[in-house]
Amino acid sequence: SSTLALSKDQRQEEEKVQGGASDGAAATGGGNGNKGVVVSYWGVEPAKITKEDGTEWKWNCFRPWETYTSNTTIDLKKHHAPVTWMDKMAFWTVKALRLPTDIFFQKRYGCRAMMLETVAAVPGMVGGMLLHCQSLRRFEHSGGWIKALLEEAENERMHLMTFMEVSKPRWYERALVFAVQGVFFNAYFLAYLVSPKMAHRIVGYLEEEAIHSYTEFLKELDNGNIENVPAPAIALDYWRLPPGSTLRDVVMVVRADEAHHRDVNHFASDIHCQGLELKAAPAPVGYH
Amino acid sequence: SSTLALSKDQRQEEEKVQGGASDGAAATGGGNGNKGVVVSYWGVEPAKITKEDGTEWKWNCFRPWETYTSNTTIDLKKHHAPVTWMDKMAFWTVKALRLPTDIFFQKRYGCRAMMLETVAAVPGMVGGMLLHCQSLRRFEHSGGWIKALLEEAENERMHLMTFMEVSKPRWYERALVFAVQGVFFNAYFLAYLVSPKMAHRIVGYLEEEAIHSYTEFLKELDNGNIENVPAPAIALDYWRLPPGSTLRDVVMVVRADEAHHRDVNHFASDIHCQGLELKAAPAPVGYH
Ligand SMILES: [Fe+2]
Ligand SMILES: [Fe+2]
Ligand SMILES: [Fe+2]
Ligand SMILES: [Fe+2]
Repeated sequence: SSTLALSKDQRQEEEKVQGGASDGAAATGGGNGNKGVVVSYWGVEPAKITKEDGTEWKWNCFRPWETYTSNTTIDLKKHHAPVTWMDKMAFWTVKALRLPTDIFFQKRYGCRAMMLETVAAVPGMVGGMLLHCQSLRRFEHSGGWIKALLEEAENERMHLMTFMEVSKPRWYERALVFAVQGVFFNAYFLAYLVSPKMAHRIVGYLEEEAIHSYTEFLKELDNGNIENVPAPAIALDYWRLPPGSTLRDVVMVVRADEAHHRDVNHFASDIHCQGLELKAAPAPVGYH
Repeated sequence: SSTLALSKDQRQEEEKVQGGASDGAAATGGGNGNKGVVVSYWGVEPAKITKEDGTEWKWNCFRPWETYTSNTTIDLKKHHAPVTWMDKMAFWTVKALRLPTDIFFQKRYGCRAMMLETVAAVPGMVGGMLLHCQSLRRFEHSGGWIKALLEEAENERMHLMTFMEVSKPRWYERALVFAVQGVFFNAYFLAYLVSPKMAHRIVGYLEEEAIHSYTEFLKELDNGNIENVPAPAIALDYWRLPPGSTLRDVVMVVRADEAHHRDVNHFASDIHCQGLELKAAPAPVGYH
């Protein structure tokens, strides 16, 4: 059965009565109490995973088969020209959001990346969650779109986990993220309920802006204004980067991720524009 | 670039102006218009996946490496004896929910399974989503719990996708699911915000009840009151069941899944009971 390290003052919890055990798997960790260890009655333990080189896999947030080699040859210039009034509204919404962002961050691209990734991970989760609930309500398959959108959310979260190793948030930045998430989550949730077509279009345009600011980030790294520090350990494993990779390499693969998200979201919006539901087209699961 | 089969009356969408393409990947499908095919400008295409036997993988909702062989030796009798007032409230909430459910479904276990799986897939999604947002707000890793809970939600959705092949919902059952989801999603969302400890405990007890009703389902199959039809194709692939498997085999592996969910959720509640956050213990990712 699994063990869970706990501080000593939580020891009394170990004595908790656990009823109904029909085999020897019941909590027997009482004797270890003084060492501050609880044996879990439930026996849930994550499988031990090893890397290709035999060392222990140290990430709980992603597993070896979820890592990938980024396709950085992706076309960074693709753009959906706003045609319909809905496109235009989405386009100008994003442009309007960019202005205060540019003013706030100026050329602090590391900080900007870290902060904006906290927002970027919201749409995929909201969309995936709503499609999941829809799939349940309608007794219908989602065509893989739940997975594709949740994968996007996880990918964005990994961007955040990576950039927070490079740039540490200050207390007022944390407060800002808190407030922005509250507003953005609810706004995107409502937008997705009202018009998934427009919601995906907005994300498509947000990703186009993300590509732009990561390109600016690269310029600042190249002209020496931002120090090209070594890539964090999590980035080496997540994107299978070679040892010795740097922040520049990380920004390159993150930018490629954003281009993939751009494609997925504009594509999703296109499907809706054609009067179809997302499940009409197989989802680009594993499109990196 | 990817193709997307569309009905002819949506052809005009193909002519949509797409700007900014810097290479030959732009929409060039106009010539195929009369055949009702659109070439996607975005080039997002799910990777072609083949089964071990070389045939094409036909499921978009899960991929070969997400299938598993169920561990049906799991102890079905484990129980968390309600001790604290919170345990007791969770326990009696679930018992109270069971009464109307028993009255409504009587011995229609196939229908019951299908209907209740639409509800069962909600908690994992809500919990995963809230932990995801928390991870973003706090710039913190979740210890794998986001993934573990989203995996649970997906697993429950696959239960639904399986049972709906066996039992078809009638219109008033669809209406009921609609209403119940609306109430349950919001109730669980609020419960998880107020007390994740209690929310996971409730799910733990719900899963104990699920084990019980799947055991009753098995009895009805064994005494011939419910016909032991062949297992749906999706079940064969998802749980890697041998050809010729039946509904009984499916109920066996689904019941084992519920026992795993029971363990995960009681364990999560236990972690909270010890005054810790979930990330203090590595999540049982891939615990089937
Ligand atoms: Fe990102
Ligand atoms: Fe992105
Ligand atoms: Fe289930
Ligand atoms: Fe379950």
